[in-house]
Amino acid sequence: MSGAPILVVGSVALDSVRTPFGETHEALGGSASYFSLSASHFAAVRLVAVVGEDFPLASRTLLESRGVDLSGLETAAGRTFRWRGEYAAELGHAHTLETQLNVFSAFHPRLDDVHRRTPYVFLANIDPDLQLEVLRQIERPTLSLSDTMNYWIARKPDRVLEVLREVDVALLNEEEARALAGETQLVRAADRLLDQGARAVIIKQGEHGALYQSREQRFITPAYPCESLTDPTGAGDSFAGGFLGWLARSGGHDGNALRQALACGATMASIAIEDFSPARLAETAPREITERLRTLHDMMHFDLVEPFGSDAAPLPRR
Amino acid sequence: MSGAPILVVGSVALDSVRTPFGETHEALGGSASYFSLSASHFAAVRLVAVVGEDFPLASRTLLESRGVDLSGLETAAGRTFRWRGEYAAELGHAHTLETQLNVFSAFHPRLDDVHRRTPYVFLANIDPDLQLEVLRQIERPTLSLSDTMNYWIARKPDRVLEVLREVDVALLNEEEARALAGETQLVRAADRLLDQGARAVIIKQGEHGALYQSREQRFITPAYPCESLTDPTGAGDSFAGGFLGWLARSGGHDGNALRQALACGATMASIAIEDFSPARLAETAPREITERLRTLHDMMHFDLVEPFGSDAAPLPRR
Repeated sequence: MSGAPILVVGSVALDSVRTPFGETHEALGGSASYFSLSASHFAAVRLVAVVGEDFPLASRTLLESRGVDLSGLETAAGRTFRWRGEYAAELGHAHTLETQLNVFSAFHPRLDDVHRRTPYVFLANIDPDLQLEVLRQIERPTLSLSDTMNYWIARKPDRVLEVLREVDVALLNEEEARALAGETQLVRAADRLLDQGARAVIIKQGEHGALYQSREQRFITPAYPCESLTDPTGAGDSFAGGFLGWLARSGGHDGNALRQALACGATMASIAIEDFSPARLAETAPREITERLRTLHDMMHFDLVEPFGSDAAPLPRR
Repeated sequence: MSGAPILVVGSVALDSVRTPFGETHEALGGSASYFSLSASHFAAVRLVAVVGEDFPLASRTLLESRGVDLSGLETAAGRTFRWRGEYAAELGHAHTLETQLNVFSAFHPRLDDVHRRTPYVFLANIDPDLQLEVLRQIERPTLSLSDTMNYWIARKPDRVLEVLREVDVALLNEEEARALAGETQLVRAADRLLDQGARAVIIKQGEHGALYQSREQRFITPAYPCESLTDPTGAGDSFAGGFLGWLARSGGHDGNALRQALACGATMASIAIEDFSPARLAETAPREITERLRTLHDMMHFDLVEPFGSDAAPLPRR
């Protein structure tokens, strides 16, 4: 089993986050950072993003320590993208206090030949116009996955849908799926997105798991029950890293591989949220990932029986 | 495989419910009705509750058509318990418009010898003092399951906790578990309830599944993704019916049986919410239940592999 490489195009940021369990100041953040450190446990990752001249060497070293290829990490004149947010006790939704796009505002992904021919591609949450720019540059990949956010759905719904139609799998959270589909019920929202041209969608339900739906198949994974949730930032990107990471590593694309990939996604998300920044993702070991995957499997797997016998005869009435 | 009988003590009501998908007027409702019709597919059910002189013959006939033993259904002078509520588009929470306890306000469960010796017991959502009255009357059952609601947690938390300590498994929804445990994180709320003396808890997460936790074991089931949610009323009691029904039918009590029972619970809940009142529960057939159980199994089951090989060696760095 060898991991085919993955290309990720997204943001690398400095995050300042406060949760009921503590806070962090200008720590490594951004969708591409979480994704890369998560996926790096499964496959080689090539990162395309932009940082400013103030991007800390320690963060660069952290990514490199996990073997992430930073040849596509551009350093532009100016300051690195910064995000400041906080979570209330329920930890469901981040409240953004400040966003400084800085060098990210002029970012246009530039792919070299190696990037262009990468078989697995993750278009992290960036402007859908940039996602389309990437799609136009790459050769047809084995599998492409996109993410987005409410901000773009509100401002550029047509472009978001255009991306959805281009990629193999589109990742959205519950709220985003409802907003984009105009449907409150999740399964119907997923159906509606397929009607609108998506090939497959994964609807992330945060602490409640995820739903994968294509025209032919529907899979679900519960979330891994987390004992020490500290900071939910990056959970979705870490999920994406485990999901695409497993597909790239295994080379599988059937239902079993997709269900395994969902479980790997849930596993990596559960690790990411146990600390601020992607620190836990960088330091986790294959043994821990394997153990969580096994625990997740064992918590939900049951032997299928015919509850009413193979003839499915009703119970005799009393 | 033969089903051991189940005793349920709870409410039988006439519900008037409005959802975005329609409404119903004075249809059969109440925790014991939903539970009985759900569990009746797996085992013989003995119902203890009270109705008024106005309780419709058709509702009695519906319960009897599923073999539910109504010898413990008392008819008291006065009107049947009535509940009127509505759900907004999100369908998460019922908004109660009116509750008329009527004959239910003076209800004290009276169990005969057959009731007292029933091996499986469900104490549906009624006053915890009544639940304790039932527990004092019954012989030690094979397995007892309780339910409750925020109303009692707010008014009689100590009595709710007393019930929790007496039964084998206590069922709560997310909100109730958080309120009773004083913990927002679900896994911690479950731990806290065990600290407070519960032997095992199931935390129902509505459309997101359920978590079972005892001191030794933790299991999860996702909800069955429902395509045609019409009325969520009774989902929790239908879940309880499938859960306890399977345990009574199979006689199992190990981890596999509990996980199967959770899946049966999720399956029956998904059927119940496809129509108003427990109509769908009464008319569903073993074949449909079996098919949904198989679908739920197949949507989430994955073959466990060692993602990093059996030596759990990290990926070589690039």
